Amino acid sequence: MAGLKEACGVFGIYDMDGGNVVPSVYYGLTALQHRGQESCGIAVSRTEGEAGNICFHKDLGLVNEVFHEDTLAKMQGDIAIGHVRYSTTGASVAENAQPLVLSYIKGTLALAHNGNLINTPELKWELIQNGAIFHTTTDSEVIAFHIARERVHTKSVEEAVLKTAKKLKGAYGLVIMSPRKLIGVRDPYGLKPLCLGRRGNAYIFASESCALKSVGAEFIRDVEPGEMITVSRNGIESNKELEKKKHAHCVFEYIYFARLDSTLDGLNVYDARIRGGRLLAESHPADADLVTGVPESGIPAAKGFSEASGIPFGLAFYKNSYIGRTFIKPTQKERESSVHMKLSVLDPVVRGKRIVLVDDSIVRGTTIANLIHMLKEAGAREVHVRISSPPFLCPCYFGTDVPSNDQLIASGRTAEEIRDMIGADSLGYMEIGCLEDMAEGIPLCKACFDGKYPMDTAGVEEGSFCSPVSKKEK
Amino acid sequence: MAGLKEACGVFGIYDMDGGNVVPSVYYGLTALQHRGQESCGIAVSRTEGEAGNICFHKDLGLVNEVFHEDTLAKMQGDIAIGHVRYSTTGASVAENAQPLVLSYIKGTLALAHNGNLINTPELKWELIQNGAIFHTTTDSEVIAFHIARERVHTKSVEEAVLKTAKKLKGAYGLVIMSPRKLIGVRDPYGLKPLCLGRRGNAYIFASESCALKSVGAEFIRDVEPGEMITVSRNGIESNKELEKKKHAHCVFEYIYFARLDSTLDGLNVYDARIRGGRLLAESHPADADLVTGVPESGIPAAKGFSEASGIPFGLAFYKNSYIGRTFIKPTQKERESSVHMKLSVLDPVVRGKRIVLVDDSIVRGTTIANLIHMLKEAGAREVHVRISSPPFLCPCYFGTDVPSNDQLIASGRTAEEIRDMIGADSLGYMEIGCLEDMAEGIPLCKACFDGKYPMDTAGVEEGSFCSPVSKKEK
Amino acid sequence: MAGLKEACGVFGIYDMDGGNVVPSVYYGLTALQHRGQESCGIAVSRTEGEAGNICFHKDLGLVNEVFHEDTLAKMQGDIAIGHVRYSTTGASVAENAQPLVLSYIKGTLALAHNGNLINTPELKWELIQNGAIFHTTTDSEVIAFHIARERVHTKSVEEAVLKTAKKLKGAYGLVIMSPRKLIGVRDPYGLKPLCLGRRGNAYIFASESCALKSVGAEFIRDVEPGEMITVSRNGIESNKELEKKKHAHCVFEYIYFARLDSTLDGLNVYDARIRGGRLLAESHPADADLVTGVPESGIPAAKGFSEASGIPFGLAFYKNSYIGRTFIKPTQKERESSVHMKLSVLDPVVRGKRIVLVDDSIVRGTTIANLIHMLKEAGAREVHVRISSPPFLCPCYFGTDVPSNDQLIASGRTAEEIRDMIGADSLGYMEIGCLEDMAEGIPLCKACFDGKYPMDTAGVEEGSFCSPVSKKEK
Amino acid sequence: MAGLKEACGVFGIYDMDGGNVVPSVYYGLTALQHRGQESCGIAVSRTEGEAGNICFHKDLGLVNEVFHEDTLAKMQGDIAIGHVRYSTTGASVAENAQPLVLSYIKGTLALAHNGNLINTPELKWELIQNGAIFHTTTDSEVIAFHIARERVHTKSVEEAVLKTAKKLKGAYGLVIMSPRKLIGVRDPYGLKPLCLGRRGNAYIFASESCALKSVGAEFIRDVEPGEMITVSRNGIESNKELEKKKHAHCVFEYIYFARLDSTLDGLNVYDARIRGGRLLAESHPADADLVTGVPESGIPAAKGFSEASGIPFGLAFYKNSYIGRTFIKPTQKERESSVHMKLSVLDPVVRGKRIVLVDDSIVRGTTIANLIHMLKEAGAREVHVRISSPPFLCPCYFGTDVPSNDQLIASGRTAEEIRDMIGADSLGYMEIGCLEDMAEGIPLCKACFDGKYPMDTAGVEEGSFCSPVSKKEK
Repeated sequence: MAGLKEACGVFGIYDMDGGNVVPSVYYGLTALQHRGQESCGIAVSRTEGEAGNICFHKDLGLVNEVFHEDTLAKMQGDIAIGHVRYSTTGASVAENAQPLVLSYIKGTLALAHNGNLINTPELKWELIQNGAIFHTTTDSEVIAFHIARERVHTKSVEEAVLKTAKKLKGAYGLVIMSPRKLIGVRDPYGLKPLCLGRRGNAYIFASESCALKSVGAEFIRDVEPGEMITVSRNGIESNKELEKKKHAHCVFEYIYFARLDSTLDGLNVYDARIRGGRLLAESHPADADLVTGVPESGIPAAKGFSEASGIPFGLAFYKNSYIGRTFIKPTQKERESSVHMKLSVLDPVVRGKRIVLVDDSIVRGTTIANLIHMLKEAGAREVHVRISSPPFLCPCYFGTDVPSNDQLIASGRTAEEIRDMIGADSLGYMEIGCLEDMAEGIPLCKACFDGKYPMDTAGVEEGSFCSPVSKKEK
Repeated sequence: MAGLKEACGVFGIYDMDGGNVVPSVYYGLTALQHRGQESCGIAVSRTEGEAGNICFHKDLGLVNEVFHEDTLAKMQGDIAIGHVRYSTTGASVAENAQPLVLSYIKGTLALAHNGNLINTPELKWELIQNGAIFHTTTDSEVIAFHIARERVHTKSVEEAVLKTAKKLKGAYGLVIMSPRKLIGVRDPYGLKPLCLGRRGNAYIFASESCALKSVGAEFIRDVEPGEMITVSRNGIESNKELEKKKHAHCVFEYIYFARLDSTLDGLNVYDARIRGGRLLAESHPADADLVTGVPESGIPAAKGFSEASGIPFGLAFYKNSYIGRTFIKPTQKERESSVHMKLSVLDPVVRGKRIVLVDDSIVRGTTIANLIHMLKEAGAREVHVRISSPPFLCPCYFGTDVPSNDQLIASGRTAEEIRDMIGADSLGYMEIGCLEDMAEGIPLCKACFDGKYPMDTAGVEEGSFCSPVSKKEK
Repeated sequence: MAGLKEACGVFGIYDMDGGNVVPSVYYGLTALQHRGQESCGIAVSRTEGEAGNICFHKDLGLVNEVFHEDTLAKMQGDIAIGHVRYSTTGASVAENAQPLVLSYIKGTLALAHNGNLINTPELKWELIQNGAIFHTTTDSEVIAFHIARERVHTKSVEEAVLKTAKKLKGAYGLVIMSPRKLIGVRDPYGLKPLCLGRRGNAYIFASESCALKSVGAEFIRDVEPGEMITVSRNGIESNKELEKKKHAHCVFEYIYFARLDSTLDGLNVYDARIRGGRLLAESHPADADLVTGVPESGIPAAKGFSEASGIPFGLAFYKNSYIGRTFIKPTQKERESSVHMKLSVLDPVVRGKRIVLVDDSIVRGTTIANLIHMLKEAGAREVHVRISSPPFLCPCYFGTDVPSNDQLIASGRTAEEIRDMIGADSLGYMEIGCLEDMAEGIPLCKACFDGKYPMDTAGVEEGSFCSPVSKKEK
Repeated sequence: MAGLKEACGVFGIYDMDGGNVVPSVYYGLTALQHRGQESCGIAVSRTEGEAGNICFHKDLGLVNEVFHEDTLAKMQGDIAIGHVRYSTTGASVAENAQPLVLSYIKGTLALAHNGNLINTPELKWELIQNGAIFHTTTDSEVIAFHIARERVHTKSVEEAVLKTAKKLKGAYGLVIMSPRKLIGVRDPYGLKPLCLGRRGNAYIFASESCALKSVGAEFIRDVEPGEMITVSRNGIESNKELEKKKHAHCVFEYIYFARLDSTLDGLNVYDARIRGGRLLAESHPADADLVTGVPESGIPAAKGFSEASGIPFGLAFYKNSYIGRTFIKPTQKERESSVHMKLSVLDPVVRGKRIVLVDDSIVRGTTIANLIHMLKEAGAREVHVRISSPPFLCPCYFGTDVPSNDQLIASGRTAEEIRDMIGADSLGYMEIGCLEDMAEGIPLCKACFDGKYPMDTAGVEEGSFCSPVSKKEK
């Protein structure tokens, strides 16, 4: 797979015993690194003494590139939030790194946000007309502004957050740090994940449960869709005014985004992927000698396919894990004469075999075509491709960076045409109807497959809703 | 000298022929580097096509450290502003680097600001109460917010700038870039310098005339105190609604800050310093064999002293110019056994001589004491210190970072006590009354010497007016 | 597994059509990166024009960290060698990076060396007594010196290389670049691998066949033990004067070092590891529900164990691939409260299961103990450890950095004692006698397990043979 | 002036009280930075315990760029040497940085060398024929090799150094560190400077006396031409076997290279330059209103000219000291429209004046022509150029990088032709005959002016003597 980009991962922690929480944010973000590799940041403060005096550091790069021992040593506090981000390219992306740290009427505030709003232009326009200025092009700054504006009239920061949340349309998993409170909020449909954990007297919010595990915390429960949880000296307070009857958890978290060892909204990711492979084997059986998966994303579904079909599972590829961000990709000419640098075929495994090749999705189709070609060159007799999700046909407005239609191989093509283009002997996509089974019945947002968005998206322009203000001066 | 820090230098350029102006900003900022060495930045845009699409780069470091060939190559446009800054230390100083770039109701805006406001708390409080959020602790962001707020109701950006300027109290030389206009504004007293130049069809604002020269531009005139000049397709428009009857140019520009080869408000800096030395020779003559200056700041006044007194001028120190920002200073122990790394005495010049040592000012007194000691060790018979400015006694609220009273050697001490502390054989300060002569009668702000501020400063807390919002959440 | 470090990987290429070979070295070294991650380097030259004018670049770091696009663009030529290195720590390791580039009687020479000599002190002493000086502490410099000394009396560089090789005792895979020749030599026992490939008119040497594949070259054959192959304008010439009757290929290449998709001396690495797992299942069966491997090194043997035993294979761990070299490891305290950052257990896979956990080797035993603990915490009922190699008991003198006895868990302990220490329910090591079966009868060096070295190692001090000259001046 | 490059500066220190000497080397090299700005390095060791265990660090850059606090903290010892270098460009210059650190028959050795040998090819050829290999293209490695070869048969390292020195032809100031001895050697003609100082029980060698001053050491005496001084536990031992009757100190040290505050071979540099200016005034008087010098190199001679002529001295240029190594020079087009970034004219000083412009030398003539043009543009009525050295006509073989003839403006031109080219109203060079007067009679090497080399230079190819071995393999 590949080609789909997740927006972000968030983490927040407040240790009521006053212990320094920065190392926990570091490890938590490392555990969430798969959700965003372009930039990351940590903001930390103390709830005692000079409360609200926030120290922060954020930059482009992986967590272990941005934070070194001396940087971490300078950051101390009992309350902190962190963020990992996949941002689109551009000259000033470092400016858009999170957490966002700012001062307003009630002191300082830091926010970390996963997801995308669909009413940003309206929210922004309202502010702009009152003379707001923006430093970034992020939704997060718009949210912060509304909180600040509400805070003028409210008794507490959580009240301002709640009033703001009521205006937001879209997907969000949000952690907010005020001088003495840590707040987690999740959008009313539960599109983006957020969970709550505990380690001693420290409470923790994280996008995925794997991050709780990484810091030795116990999972308490998911933040419910539409729920706001406030952690303060007074303990934990929950507010559910926002809650919608109808929930819609992003199906792609289970198919691809989330870590194998996470459990989101009661559904274990590994289990879901194994089940996906099993369902695929039932609906799209193949007469073959070996089932294999595209590393790493296709491996669990391949295992499931193998279990259900009885066809042995095997590893057909070696993955070179030393190809970092600065790797210089082969030119077209070099690519033709040489081969795939990241994956190479284990020839003895595939030679003479009829192979089922499982992946989680096809975006542009170039990667899978390349792999099929490599398998055949290595002597595979047949290659039957099975995809553990339906074809992408519709844009996602909630934070998943699906390429535009003209780049999606499934757009306007039949499965047979796609099969032909990628050079497979057969091709099977999971049926939309099977997704509920895969997810054991929890409510899903499957809009990228069927266009049925959980909320009204009329008028939302694909990709444009988060662009900078474009009204030009005359 | 030394110990005084200037706030900033600004530069702005708009080439109506559409030529790329970025190299000019680079050279212009290099010429202004003496005004600020901590951080710098450039923001550039195009007035045609995607007007208002600003590309910017700013960071801690000197101009030639922050901008490399590849960085500059990526920045292109016909309108740009730049900034060099001396900022105080702190964890997030990079966030405070300028120009400030932001978007608001009318598109994008970039600002570069030299000087300090004294009513920032009031200006900020007004905004905060209406829900503003702040990313930085700079005056510049406060100014930008007010412009944005005014812009909601005004027909043009210059109108919004003017309305904002009317609210500002303090010192400022300001350049503002909107999508299609370049605006320069100077505070009504003319505390901070700003001038206008031209090269072909390009108009240029700069803090000092030396920056015009460095880019081959001709000096047109100083921006007048309280004047706002707008450069647009329609040409140059001047507005003088802000002007005050009473002007007050910062005397320290002539004594120390400005470059020797600049001319500010009609007064040439080199001439002023020579004249300062002459006046000093008249009021505080000395019976000596040689006049020398502390490099570099004391050299011109030493020349003037020599001319007026007839005592020969000589160079008594070698200055090591390879001691950069990362130089590791000797420890106290090393300093005792070794000597001054930056300056060393030319023994044959001073041996057996009675010396007049001229400098522009004394702040803490440690440097001058050290130099006197070095001269005596090298065989100087007498060292007569002459200072081309009066003693510092009062805080500056307009952007000059004078240390607090307990660090100022002149605070609470007679000249005789100071002479004794620094180990000089005699000590003479320029009289306050001579400053007008030095400046050929142009109106000066001399508040750091006599406490007579050009505007009401009651209630302004020294150093605190630009601190972050400190109202804490309960 | 882990704790064993391989010395190096080498790569050499000469394109007789004159094409630029530097990109091929870059991709070849990337494919060999698993053999050494501390430093790397490339030396390139032209065989025409200014032949022997070598351009080189080497530094600490991974291939994609050391070489950027601009560095590569400056390096051009039709003949080149490269190296990846695992070096021991120390202040000046960058000095020891390879290739070694030097000038001598016949112009310039570059060498890249994989392996360790055991008679370095004698070889060095002979040189030192004649006034040689050394810049590095590498074997490679000693080899280069002997070549230079022989070259005084020989007609060709290959003759000098051959004479030198006759003096070397130990393990080596060596590629040498002279102004117009590329030479590959392998030690007489074939301890270290080296193979020959071809792409058009370009000939290539590489430590492993996977590197040939990565540049689109076809595998011709292994360089035979004791063979020297010279590539020049005259084509390929082979010399086998060095060959020993008895061969001894390092068994650990098959167990751990080499890439899964390489074939060394006719034996495919993946096949060997699968077979190792099968043999283990036969000799050390287990009554269990699931077979799993320690990622990545234990996976293939686990697959083999599963196939032979009929117990289903499963993935029990998620591996975080974002933990780079600069990752800050948790402190002891953090490690206790939190858990393993690199691997985490897939709870649903292991809960309630009796598990066979396969790895390729145990060095210190701490990693495996940790993993067993994690599996049990996640609900595994039993954990049966199976190791696809015998216990380490003896030092390796040929380039594998086995820790000293006091750090080896197997040293002086019975299997039962080890089992108890690591907390496993049962423990089975592969029998030494099975290694031949695993390797399909090719001759092996198994000295790290049985102490039977292929050559006389009396007097060789473990670890000391490559230390700097230690005769001190009086 | 500019265009002439000095080779190097050396520093060595041995503290018999065991104190850490690394900070002293750091400050000493900083004081010598004017002698070489491309690379620098420090090698340090302990004379007790693990004597000969050398720790070193060297890299491209200024002393304060290459050494940071953490680097220095790791380097400790009671004996150390250091080096600053001006190296020619090339791909692998970092390899040529000094000190050279190596191991040989008697342990380790470190060398730092200032100057150039003229018999390097013969010295190298002798070694190469015996099988030597070279890592660098420096003379220093050749010297080290000969020391190592001699050391086989000698009782002490100083004996080997002496035997080696007897073979060397050319210029050298050499400091050598063996495990327990610090040795300084100077070439028999005394072409390159070297002096000895003391601080407590620490003895110090330095290229110039200013470096002694910078570390609080007292100047003992110059190392005499042809003298070798050995500092060891036994104290100071001097050997003068090498001494030549005829001495020849490089005249350019006094004219340009050395620091104003240094005294070399009894002659103070500042005094010499003042005297140079006086002599120039006598032989080439001018009818003018002001004498000024090109900063910084021309200032002292201008002072001398002023004193002798009675024409007032003035500063006509402001020098921008913030233009560092990474400064992006204006393109030709920018240079035409803009002006000189590094120097700018102080208009009021020069307007309407007839000016004497003094510099130490003219190399290519472009800089002086540019400055004359700037002075005239600023209103100077006449510009009379006076140069405090004769015209360059001959190559220097001893370490000064004089450009080749076709780049020297004086080559093949009369003074009148040069005057015309640079646009001066008159031009006067110091007469060769005056140099002795300037130097108060100390013996000089003036070969760059008159071609009378102190030793036989027949057959020495300009620029080629230090090139890499060029015998190519067939």
